[in-house]
Amino acid sequence: MLDNLYIALIHHPVSNKKGSTIASALTTIDMHDIARASMTFGVRGFYVVTPLMDQQVLAHEVIDHWTEGIGGELNPFRKRALELIRVVSTFEDALQDIKADCNQPVVTVATSAAKHDKTITTAEFAEKLLQQRGQQRILTCEKLSSCASHLIAFGTAWGLSQEFISNCDFILEPVYGIGVYNHLSVRSAVSIILDRICRNLPCGEIQ
Amino acid sequence: MLDNLYIALIHHPVSNKKGSTIASALTTIDMHDIARASMTFGVRGFYVVTPLMDQQVLAHEVIDHWTEGIGGELNPFRKRALELIRVVSTFEDALQDIKADCNQPVVTVATSAAKHDKTITTAEFAEKLLQQRGQQRILTCEKLSSCASHLIAFGTAWGLSQEFISNCDFILEPVYGIGVYNHLSVRSAVSIILDRICRNLPCGEIQ
Repeated sequence: MLDNLYIALIHHPVSNKKGSTIASALTTIDMHDIARASMTFGVRGFYVVTPLMDQQVLAHEVIDHWTEGIGGELNPFRKRALELIRVVSTFEDALQDIKADCNQPVVTVATSAAKHDKTITTAEFAEKLLQQRGQQRILTCEKLSSCASHLIAFGTAWGLSQEFISNCDFILEPVYGIGVYNHLSVRSAVSIILDRICRNLPCGEIQ
Repeated sequence: MLDNLYIALIHHPVSNKKGSTIASALTTIDMHDIARASMTFGVRGFYVVTPLMDQQVLAHEVIDHWTEGIGGELNPFRKRALELIRVVSTFEDALQDIKADCNQPVVTVATSAAKHDKTITTAEFAEKLLQQRGQQRILTCEKLSSCASHLIAFGTAWGLSQEFISNCDFILEPVYGIGVYNHLSVRSAVSIILDRICRNLPCGEIQ
């Protein structure tokens, strides 16, 4: 497990099509797909961030079905994945939760479909995961647990608000493929970004 | 565009949890996510394969909404993606459609969460995309259009049936991350595999 890597799925503050800041509705399949990708790539925790109480209730219903209810009995793999999810009201709550858990500084990383001044590549981000406390590439995955924690934020709707992005320490490069079209679902974007990060880490089982 | 790369989302023959061969129901969000990933990574065509007529009708309703109806007006990016989808009854129908389109041989590639004798890595597969007709790495993406076509099959439910996998020319390696957990959604698996393939191709814009 990458003990210092967390991700957050943000439902507020995000942009709508017109650029206004809104709170988006939960898409329950996001929880499944992103939890499964988080398990696959060794993420320590996955925060679902929404200030809307009815959406928090819905999120807990989904989680409970798969972790406490019949869902988890029928599919233990899904149970393990959804156990990674923590539902919080704000991004700040997620940061506080990590600090309480690890007593470590938390580096915040935004994702965006556009380039910004603070944009870094996934390779550079992987390097930052490894370079904490002056330790270089000789680190193994296990030793990462002694490093500062990193929280990557992914936006729903039309993406994280500009103000939110500006407040993060770094911004990950947009996910481009073979051309300029970069309109992936957040589920696909999370999966690809986690894969790209892991492929830049010197962990034995990464292909 | 990778003119010689196609993908197929198979709803029959696939396995259920007990290993029996079934026809699975359509998950409409698969169509959106996989079409968007296909656009991103320059796939030429995306086949939704189901023998069930009511599921074909549903697939066409979704496609029509986004390509002919109000959906495409509201979101032209989604329109472009869903225009890649072709609904067919069988994998063989997809093969025939590609042959009619390109008049080229079609190499079939299965995906699986398990390793097989014919398993190849995504890097090896990218090499095969490039090495057709004796042309080596000097090929640019544009020149790939003169090569044999390749159709990658992705299974819904609990994956492609063993017989289906055995009948394919090659099998792509399972998507592992940082450990042994490999229970990604098919949406995530397609996204990661296309990204891994493209990152092994010598195309200018690939990061």
